[in-house]
Amino acid sequence: MKKLFYPRRVAVVGASRHPGKVGHGILKNLVRDFEGDVVPINPKADEILGLKCYPSLSDAPDPVDLAVVAVPAPIVPSIVEEAGEKGVPYCIVISAGFSEAGNEDLEKELVETARKHGVRIVGPNCLGVINTENGLNASFAAESPPGDGIAFITQSGALATSVIDWFSSGDVGTVGVGFSKFVSIGNAADLDFPDFLDYLAGDDKTDVVVLYVEGVKDGEAFLESLERCTDEKPVIVLKGGRTEAGAEAVGTHTGSMAGSGPVYEGLIRQYGGITVEGFEEAFDAAKLMSKSEPPRSNRVLVVTNAGGGGILAADALYSHGFELPEPEGDPSVLPPEASTKNPVDVLGDADAERYRIALEEFADPDLYGAVMVILTPQSMTEPVKTAKIVLEFAEDFPGPVLGVWMGRHSVELGIRTLEDGGVPTFPSPERAARALAHAWDYARRKGDVLGETPDGGGARDQG
Amino acid sequence: MKKLFYPRRVAVVGASRHPGKVGHGILKNLVRDFEGDVVPINPKADEILGLKCYPSLSDAPDPVDLAVVAVPAPIVPSIVEEAGEKGVPYCIVISAGFSEAGNEDLEKELVETARKHGVRIVGPNCLGVINTENGLNASFAAESPPGDGIAFITQSGALATSVIDWFSSGDVGTVGVGFSKFVSIGNAADLDFPDFLDYLAGDDKTDVVVLYVEGVKDGEAFLESLERCTDEKPVIVLKGGRTEAGAEAVGTHTGSMAGSGPVYEGLIRQYGGITVEGFEEAFDAAKLMSKSEPPRSNRVLVVTNAGGGGILAADALYSHGFELPEPEGDPSVLPPEASTKNPVDVLGDADAERYRIALEEFADPDLYGAVMVILTPQSMTEPVKTAKIVLEFAEDFPGPVLGVWMGRHSVELGIRTLEDGGVPTFPSPERAARALAHAWDYARRKGDVLGETPDGGGARDQG
Repeated sequence: MKKLFYPRRVAVVGASRHPGKVGHGILKNLVRDFEGDVVPINPKADEILGLKCYPSLSDAPDPVDLAVVAVPAPIVPSIVEEAGEKGVPYCIVISAGFSEAGNEDLEKELVETARKHGVRIVGPNCLGVINTENGLNASFAAESPPGDGIAFITQSGALATSVIDWFSSGDVGTVGVGFSKFVSIGNAADLDFPDFLDYLAGDDKTDVVVLYVEGVKDGEAFLESLERCTDEKPVIVLKGGRTEAGAEAVGTHTGSMAGSGPVYEGLIRQYGGITVEGFEEAFDAAKLMSKSEPPRSNRVLVVTNAGGGGILAADALYSHGFELPEPEGDPSVLPPEASTKNPVDVLGDADAERYRIALEEFADPDLYGAVMVILTPQSMTEPVKTAKIVLEFAEDFPGPVLGVWMGRHSVELGIRTLEDGGVPTFPSPERAARALAHAWDYARRKGDVLGETPDGGGARDQG
Repeated sequence: MKKLFYPRRVAVVGASRHPGKVGHGILKNLVRDFEGDVVPINPKADEILGLKCYPSLSDAPDPVDLAVVAVPAPIVPSIVEEAGEKGVPYCIVISAGFSEAGNEDLEKELVETARKHGVRIVGPNCLGVINTENGLNASFAAESPPGDGIAFITQSGALATSVIDWFSSGDVGTVGVGFSKFVSIGNAADLDFPDFLDYLAGDDKTDVVVLYVEGVKDGEAFLESLERCTDEKPVIVLKGGRTEAGAEAVGTHTGSMAGSGPVYEGLIRQYGGITVEGFEEAFDAAKLMSKSEPPRSNRVLVVTNAGGGGILAADALYSHGFELPEPEGDPSVLPPEASTKNPVDVLGDADAERYRIALEEFADPDLYGAVMVILTPQSMTEPVKTAKIVLEFAEDFPGPVLGVWMGRHSVELGIRTLEDGGVPTFPSPERAARALAHAWDYARRKGDVLGETPDGGGARDQG
């Protein structure tokens, strides 16, 4: 799929001069950041957005590695025919009006035409494909998502637009999540989850894969590719239709067989996938796993300037099967009122330096697989300085370090400092613990761990 | 407690001229918005922040209904003595250095002095008290939280500052949560949860009470006042120390008996409380319950412009014990490709008007106890116009109407429109369903419902 994600030249068939039209939005997205050539195809225009237009795909200069097709459904097969004759290896068919609208024959004709010429199809009825590495935004999304190590493959184009809208906002509640590749598979008439999983398994820009799956056509192929990909990197699966009511809704929406929800979820786990119940949970876990080494044990140290925050963290971690053994180290490095059990409570008047002392003295990498640092805004609190100390500490610590800067106004710059430096942050200990449970679950199943208790590890998530 | 929350005159004992000092922060908070009189007490100053200073509490003009005390712990009992002699009914003792620091005797002396004179004490070792109705911010919080119908009583001052920081940010992810009363009980040497619960039960500015509880001194009194208060309004309880690890941390933090976590949670539920696992869950549920009539059945209609969003909603609702019966009504009011099952899918090209048609035709108040409206940003989507239509609809619908505007940039104004108009919004169907489950659970236990299925209702939350 190299040429799909890294095309030298992209043609937009159905490029439009009119803002608001899909064929205009796609061209605009490509013009903005794409490093390669972009060629609009429109028989009625000489130039769009400053680019020379060609009357047909056949007239475009060679080679065209990718054609993005946004023309009425009935003429799409003829465009694919043209692409085949020209030697275009990939078409993204944005156009709707195929099987999802009851036009199964037209979709069949599309696939047969593509097969005849060896053209591979993304879609039809999809939002498009984005590669943040080379600025390829071959979609009609209103914005481009930030770049980073998460690949997202979704069966719902509408949820894709929500996800892009959310994470391109720059809001402090969304920082730290960025994408390598972003694919809306639409009806998946040709290229489907297995094809993308196999490609992403070997994509060194992708650390973690997130899937939104409603139903799959070939369950066996899906599970096998899932297993191959999870050998390389975590694959987080949000399965729409995991309950009876949801499965009924899937039947109405895509017409695909959702399968019995719980059974399907069990199989996904059995083949190495990480199952989640929503996007927040999915991207919390993906952010953590894309930024951190896996935890090597289920023992966690919590450092906090708020007793209450430490208690909530202990509750949440314990609920997920983690242990909080007491640290070794010299208690006298902290004031006598501080607690040097676990959670280590550095007290409400802690400055950044006191966090540094606590981390250096108590966060023993041989004892702990992960460290959660909690900060609440008190009078002496230094959210940014403390963030910098956590960044320094995280550089040497061999497992995940999680920041929980609780609040908004007063801690926002601290959160941004942590995320910019590669330490994942969460708004609450519960969300941090839930993300860590997924990371530990994956590490444990990979077998790359130092040790664990008999019952330990992600107890709540074992379905 | 009328005079605690609605004092005519407040004295700040230990008022300071120096920004950064607690005694300065409290005075500043009071000067900003409080409708009554404020009197700084400081023997070494003539005037602070433009207010005439008095050398001692005894010298202040009568009546003083509330004294906020921020002087070193050892002299606090003498201040309370003075308050008693002057006839000051309430003291908020901000000062730390009592039982939490091992000085049990000093705390005992404080309580005995107060009892002798009939003075009631909040604290010691607390953040303070806020009443948004009259602008009383008798705390050293950095900001004042927005006003609305949620009362928050917390045993952790640090978490109180986080909560204020979060909800005073004005960020779109936090809108819609506002407070009537805000109390940090500190060591609760005198006034404790039962006192506040009894008062809030009759406070018509409070629709919902949220408690953060680590341990209680008199379990029976707590549970009885909890029951009395839940007869009037929902009480949501976040119990720090609900697991073994959390309970150990509570022991370290406050020295109070956390009780066996699960047992305690069971009792809280038995006495009518709503138990949650974190602040996000607590305030999602509180927002919904403070803004909406209770659901009268566990049947929910979902209206969405994204099939995937509807599927996630169906999964989440079903997991919480809700039902999604198919609507009656004429399917032909929507385009033929739309789904008029439940979720009703108005399709990605829906404008606001199509949402209106769907709500009018299918959201039968005799059939449904609640309605969830989902919007994702597509090319034809009208987030603000649709919000206005939902507001109109919600005015007449007799149960909760929940908005799920999925995204950020493109939908932010729509979210603010909904919240300003009193329709609670949530960033995802999962969070909306979880909040609704708590509202349904409360309504069902109150018995004020039309009907339910034998197994229905908040199945996941029944401990």
